[in-house]
Amino acid sequence: MQNVAVIGYGYWGPNLVRNFMNASTTNVLYVCDQSEDQLSRVKNLYPTIKLTTSLDEVLADSEVDAVSIATPVNTHYELAMKALEAGKHVLVEKPMADSSEKCKRMIEEAEKRNLTLMVDHTFPYTGAVKKIGELSKSGELGELYYFDSVRVNLGLFQSDVSVLWDLAVHDLSILESFTDNKPIAVSATGIAHVQGKPVNTAYLTVFYEGSFIAHIHANWLAPVKLRQTLIGGSEKMVVYDDLEPTEKIKIYDKGITVDPSAANITEMRVGYRAGDMWAPKLENIEALNSLVTHFVDVIENGTDPITSAESGARIVRILEAATESIEKNGQRIQL
Amino acid sequence: MQNVAVIGYGYWGPNLVRNFMNASTTNVLYVCDQSEDQLSRVKNLYPTIKLTTSLDEVLADSEVDAVSIATPVNTHYELAMKALEAGKHVLVEKPMADSSEKCKRMIEEAEKRNLTLMVDHTFPYTGAVKKIGELSKSGELGELYYFDSVRVNLGLFQSDVSVLWDLAVHDLSILESFTDNKPIAVSATGIAHVQGKPVNTAYLTVFYEGSFIAHIHANWLAPVKLRQTLIGGSEKMVVYDDLEPTEKIKIYDKGITVDPSAANITEMRVGYRAGDMWAPKLENIEALNSLVTHFVDVIENGTDPITSAESGARIVRILEAATESIEKNGQRIQL
Amino acid sequence: MQNVAVIGYGYWGPNLVRNFMNASTTNVLYVCDQSEDQLSRVKNLYPTIKLTTSLDEVLADSEVDAVSIATPVNTHYELAMKALEAGKHVLVEKPMADSSEKCKRMIEEAEKRNLTLMVDHTFPYTGAVKKIGELSKSGELGELYYFDSVRVNLGLFQSDVSVLWDLAVHDLSILESFTDNKPIAVSATGIAHVQGKPVNTAYLTVFYEGSFIAHIHANWLAPVKLRQTLIGGSEKMVVYDDLEPTEKIKIYDKGITVDPSAANITEMRVGYRAGDMWAPKLENIEALNSLVTHFVDVIENGTDPITSAESGARIVRILEAATESIEKNGQRIQL
Amino acid sequence: MQNVAVIGYGYWGPNLVRNFMNASTTNVLYVCDQSEDQLSRVKNLYPTIKLTTSLDEVLADSEVDAVSIATPVNTHYELAMKALEAGKHVLVEKPMADSSEKCKRMIEEAEKRNLTLMVDHTFPYTGAVKKIGELSKSGELGELYYFDSVRVNLGLFQSDVSVLWDLAVHDLSILESFTDNKPIAVSATGIAHVQGKPVNTAYLTVFYEGSFIAHIHANWLAPVKLRQTLIGGSEKMVVYDDLEPTEKIKIYDKGITVDPSAANITEMRVGYRAGDMWAPKLENIEALNSLVTHFVDVIENGTDPITSAESGARIVRILEAATESIEKNGQRIQL
Repeated sequence: MQNVAVIGYGYWGPNLVRNFMNASTTNVLYVCDQSEDQLSRVKNLYPTIKLTTSLDEVLADSEVDAVSIATPVNTHYELAMKALEAGKHVLVEKPMADSSEKCKRMIEEAEKRNLTLMVDHTFPYTGAVKKIGELSKSGELGELYYFDSVRVNLGLFQSDVSVLWDLAVHDLSILESFTDNKPIAVSATGIAHVQGKPVNTAYLTVFYEGSFIAHIHANWLAPVKLRQTLIGGSEKMVVYDDLEPTEKIKIYDKGITVDPSAANITEMRVGYRAGDMWAPKLENIEALNSLVTHFVDVIENGTDPITSAESGARIVRILEAATESIEKNGQRIQL
Repeated sequence: MQNVAVIGYGYWGPNLVRNFMNASTTNVLYVCDQSEDQLSRVKNLYPTIKLTTSLDEVLADSEVDAVSIATPVNTHYELAMKALEAGKHVLVEKPMADSSEKCKRMIEEAEKRNLTLMVDHTFPYTGAVKKIGELSKSGELGELYYFDSVRVNLGLFQSDVSVLWDLAVHDLSILESFTDNKPIAVSATGIAHVQGKPVNTAYLTVFYEGSFIAHIHANWLAPVKLRQTLIGGSEKMVVYDDLEPTEKIKIYDKGITVDPSAANITEMRVGYRAGDMWAPKLENIEALNSLVTHFVDVIENGTDPITSAESGARIVRILEAATESIEKNGQRIQL
Repeated sequence: MQNVAVIGYGYWGPNLVRNFMNASTTNVLYVCDQSEDQLSRVKNLYPTIKLTTSLDEVLADSEVDAVSIATPVNTHYELAMKALEAGKHVLVEKPMADSSEKCKRMIEEAEKRNLTLMVDHTFPYTGAVKKIGELSKSGELGELYYFDSVRVNLGLFQSDVSVLWDLAVHDLSILESFTDNKPIAVSATGIAHVQGKPVNTAYLTVFYEGSFIAHIHANWLAPVKLRQTLIGGSEKMVVYDDLEPTEKIKIYDKGITVDPSAANITEMRVGYRAGDMWAPKLENIEALNSLVTHFVDVIENGTDPITSAESGARIVRILEAATESIEKNGQRIQL
Repeated sequence: MQNVAVIGYGYWGPNLVRNFMNASTTNVLYVCDQSEDQLSRVKNLYPTIKLTTSLDEVLADSEVDAVSIATPVNTHYELAMKALEAGKHVLVEKPMADSSEKCKRMIEEAEKRNLTLMVDHTFPYTGAVKKIGELSKSGELGELYYFDSVRVNLGLFQSDVSVLWDLAVHDLSILESFTDNKPIAVSATGIAHVQGKPVNTAYLTVFYEGSFIAHIHANWLAPVKLRQTLIGGSEKMVVYDDLEPTEKIKIYDKGITVDPSAANITEMRVGYRAGDMWAPKLENIEALNSLVTHFVDVIENGTDPITSAESGARIVRILEAATESIEKNGQRIQL
């Protein structure tokens, strides 16, 4: 049984509290938020939870085993370091921090103290993304050719981070969960349509070793909501639409066949293969619920974390490089 | 009445012949193709048309007013120049040529001889794209923010030109038809999954003066066919799906409202506007049919061409720069 | 301020309690259910609400102004009558009762005591159905021709009532909310695929005065969930898809034009009209929330109820007749 | 090689001529139509075909082996009988005739003369409907529970036959092609919104032996075009959407499981089964092309016809009974 304190009760905090309360292996001792108003919302729902505006009070309580941080990204580093220094395990909201350098220090701190440090990327815990992972790792998709994702909607303009840090971060965590290919460079373009606001429309290409490529299109200014991902493999291809109520994953027995026997390379013949499509039944459990129980499993049994701090740091590094590339009009930035 | 010779009777030629035959203002005198087999397909359908494998025979016939060239792109320049030198008006298949330098010379030749030179970009003649043009030019969309197009399918790998020259060329002609914004630079990325074959998956960003940006995603290796275009404006936004049987164009009264009265620029508030959507009834006439009659109108009355040689040349210049940018991993290329 | 007791805390009860608690004009004094387990679920969420298994205790409390009944349909009559006799206003779950005769007595009892008796048909309180009502009553649709609804899914087989009482009841309440046409007869067919279980696939035609007709297709044994309604009018037609996240209502400027000037009636020419489609922005408020505040408004200000007991009784009468028609293989049953 | 004469060159005739010309086993000797204008449309396309307005001329020509009749339904009987009496094989457009009595006589005439008489129901020759047949006959669907089809659009009001004879006829031919269950009775409702015109909105239930039921919803006055068919079986269920470009058939591993071990029948438990969905690749050949070669195969090798005259007659009998049932407001009519 892990006693948890949830820091930050804004948009995501309530979901963390609900799942930590429902899980049989966790219990919420504290909810900590700077706003009394936010805290008052907890009282009715969970009369047993202690409410405080003081992080120190939380960290001072030796009964607290772990803290879950759901505050603005620019505060992640400071809060996580404090918690680690106080000997608490940490689950930090994504993105892990606002710089890869800070991520590095967080990882060092956690390792030094033998504490668990994980990032709350929820997509890798969904039935759909788990299925993509199985298909990829079992080799059913064959050699991976590309990952292409469109994640757009009429979304809240944030004042600090760009649309990539807000939306593309999800696709980067999905990529981490199904491929071991190493990203080596990025090229990104984008634009800020509101002066003084961050980039709200952005296009990110991530280059990998070999012939795998990923592209993410993120937009806060779209008339319709789209969550549309194509994954191309040499054997099979996947269409993943997170807005589909049931058939989120469609697997196509489609691809190309290359005939190298042709006279010379430019003569090489490319044929087609088009077969059945199927949509596998997906595990239907709340992702955050799996994450919470997995977090405890990592703490107590040292299981390999699905969304490790190292993975979280790689994602932040890509976002960092993408930001630089946008400023340089698409110039390739090495990772 | 214009007497036309159609050069090349492969994939597109039959459509050109049919439309030139059906139009009341044009008549097809010749179909010219290097393959007797192809020519034989014409005989049954149109017993009256002369068939030949010799371009010279066609160009020598003073009764021929115009030639329509539907051959591989790398032959466009040579065939078009010959036709112009023989004093014939020319309608050339898209892309106009395989280099912007060649386009330049074709334009000079046509101007020197006061001949009409047009490019057969068909999309600008469809009811859907015409409607986008009206919405844009009437100011109904407000200031244009972005154009984003996904044009993917399991398509034929060409041996000479990349997927951008094959698919993105359509989106570039659509862009030319509804905005006067000037493209100033491009950044593109892409990959060739079959060694020795051209790039089959590509992402092209076109930078424009002001805060308008265009992005085109072209892919020959996708499990599903998508023709999905988003156009964002300050007043309204458009979703254009060419695969929709009837409602190809959906106009959303959606956008953002910016409150500059805020203390300082970074405090600037961004609010939302979400209203009705409507799908206007679209003109339902074959695009190529409009193009053919328009071509005659340009020849006979000097009307401004909708798909002018200048526009075709700009498109080739963008494709040229995009090819260079892909080789340079996304580096910005000035136009 | 109305003090409410919610009777029955199964599937729907929690929604009633939540909305009665959230509304500024209502307060929940009691939740009554025969199962202690169900009651225990209330304690954590709403520590202030009194919990009891005894209806008499609830009805004996003079502080209780109204009761909301969310128990199985075969208990509605007895519970509602008791509540009315105890001088309480009543909101009863749909269908109002299991026979039109019982509905009649409930109405008489409420009238005798000047108490409010309403039925909890929620659809008429949704933004989508309200919009259909406006379009119909403003005459924008013209003369109503037909209502056609498909409401199917892989649903729970109930042991007492047929699929019509479970699903078609929603469409009948939608019909009541937008047309004043009077239903005069029904013809229904259906089948029970599980011996000893109620009809799980049924087709109901409702005949109205004039040339309006309604058809409802309800099925508990469908592979996909469909909520698809077509409404045909002489001026405009509506497609209502409740599963669409935003564009639930699409209005088509389509129809036919009849030319009566033709020689004789059988020569009468029928032409087409096809114009724009638009999807109006819909009010986005929880239907049950509107219902709850409306219920108070009816009690306190005698406003005309949107889902009156009379309307609820007409719906039960149609379901009753449909059940008889199914037994008689589609024979027309007068209402 | 069969020499064919096509009678009637209106809407469908040109498709018949094209397919009889393309097939290697058939040749078109004559096209016969009362209108010279219609005949003139044939000359350019097929200079070799003889054109005539006289059926007698066609039937007198001993070189003609078979006639294909594509004239209005009320002329089918007379023309087919003449052709049979002249010793010609007959392919008649659907519906086979305007009364089941006439169908009976046509069948007798063909049998007497050992001539082939088939009906041109094209759907059973499509890849999608063939696949449904395989799934049904292989037992993969299990016991058939229901067939439910919605076939609506803004369609041409015919002056002689109702919407059932125009649209439902397709569904009835699909039913004939995948189930051997015998239809025993019908109940239908419908309405004519234009005085003096046939019923334009109709609902047809066909009762079968056992617990299989079919329902067809046909409408000429719908704002959108729908071709949506659900087929429920005890093992699997099918969704067939003929408007889907590629995935016309979706097979759901969904259904119910019945636990008869329960105390008594009304206690019988019904559980759910929800598994994968898959869309098999479908044969992609023009249906009419298969029909034409199959017609020859039946003539020359006595193969069992897929769309036999007996089947065509059963379909006409159902349409006849449905028409009577509509007049009697849904009353069950025995077949």
